This record gives sequence, structure tokens and C-alpha cells, in this order.
Amino acid sequence: MESSFGKHILAEYFECECTYLDSEGAIRNLMLEAASKIGATIVGDIFHHFSPQGVTGVVVIAESHLAIHTWPEFRYASVDLFTCGNRVDPWIGFEYLKEELRSRKWVSKEIIRGIAEEEFVSSAYGKKGASG
Amino acid sequence: MESSFGKHILAEYFECECTYLDSEGAIRNLMLEAASKIGATIVGDIFHHFSPQGVTGVVVIAESHLAIHTWPEFRYASVDLFTCGNRVDPWIGFEYLKEELRSRKWVSKEIIRGIAEEEFVSSAYGKKGASG
Repeated sequence: MESSFGKHILAEYFECECTYLDSEGAIRNLMLEAASKIGATIVGDIFHHFSPQGVTGVVVIAESHLAIHTWPEFRYASVDLFTCGNRVDPWIGFEYLKEELRSRKWVSKEIIRGIAEEEFVSSAYGKKGASG
Repeated sequence: MESSFGKHILAEYFECECTYLDSEGAIRNLMLEAASKIGATIVGDIFHHFSPQGVTGVVVIAESHLAIHTWPEFRYASVDLFTCGNRVDPWIGFEYLKEELRSRKWVSKEIIRGIAEEEFVSSAYGKKGASG
């Protein structure tokens, strides 16, 4: 068995100042662009707008998947960037989304998938500016 | 803001003895059934079979998403069960999939999504039988 199968970044974007957290079309475009930026091969996607608000969507890629769930009322989005192989870098997608969502506070966690050991988590926390 | 938004179980199923890890139709049925068992509301799904082998799929649910990626050649499947709200229990899905995939060794990790603190990971490791 390979030593691992993939990297999975779990990102929490708080205090998002972008204006389109509730737009299915805009969030879909954003996630497709993120997939493109990390160099992934897009296999398909599915997005859904909830009533009264919120968008959920997944981009299936040959290298695994990207997922987003937004809570516009809390200016929050949770994002998963799960990629396999060394050809793509999910951290490019993490940075891209952080900028585009205009998140002022975020948490990222990288988990190595496909191994049985305990030591496979690393975390990072960030905050933008003095008022964030 | 709410104290958290959801529970996310990351599961690694090793040594899967089921015979259908490479069947898109069977894996799709399995994941739809898992969504149903945990009490989720299914919004849509997307599945894909890779050449020469492997299945990827996501079930989008009103409560977030379930995802699976299989590597039949390694008898391995990675699964995500991300659910929001108290109405559904992703651990029912975890147990169901463990049994159906006939996994002899597994790792599960529960991550609380939507909080900024560091203490949001718990892990468990399991192995079936003496020969597993």
C-alpha cells in the first residue's frame, strides 16, 4: 500500500466580506475556478441553494473532491479540499478562496488520508488586520 | 454565532472485503442508503468510475454532504460524513459503511466544523478479528 492517498484541507472561513455567499451561481464559479487553479481535472459538479439562504456544492475532480457550505447569515463558509497525488496542490485553492471570500479570520487543518497512524493532523489559524 | 455548525467524520476503511469497491452503481446505492440511514435529506448525488479502477462519489444532503473515494486495488475506501444540526447522526452512517464494506481495519476522526478553537478533533482506531 502507498504510504498515503491524499491531502485533505478542512478550512473554516469566518467573517467573509464578499457579497455573494448566498449566490449559487457565484459560489459555483468560485469553486470551479479553485479547482482549475490547483490544477485539478474536473469530473462534474453539483450545487444547491437552500431556502431561505445558504449554498452547498461539490466539485468532483479526478484527484478527489472540493466541497463548500455557506452560511451567509453568519458570514461563514466551510470548505474541503481533498486531493490525491503530487500533481496538484490544494493549498493554492485554500489561499485563493481565502482571498476571494475576503475572509478576515480562518482556520485550516490538513489531514493526510489513507494512513492508519494517529499523527496526521496539522493546523493553522489566521486573522487579517487589526480590527478583524 | 452558533457554537459550531456541524460534525465531520473522516473515515479510512482498510482491508475491505466487499466485492463491489469498483462498481459505481453499487457504491452509489451504498452511499444513498447511508444517507437514508442517518436520517439525512438527499438533495442530489454525483458518482464517477475511473479507468482502470476506482469510484468517486458525493451525496449532497440538506445537512451538508457524504463523499467516498475507493481504491479497489488496495481494498481501501476513504469516506467523509459531514452533517449539520442535531437531527442526524453521522456515526450511524460510519458504522453502516464499516459493516457493508466489510472493513477489517479502520480509522475514524471526528472534527467539529465552524469553530475557531484548536480542540476539535477526536480519533478512534479499530481492527476486526485476530487475523485482520
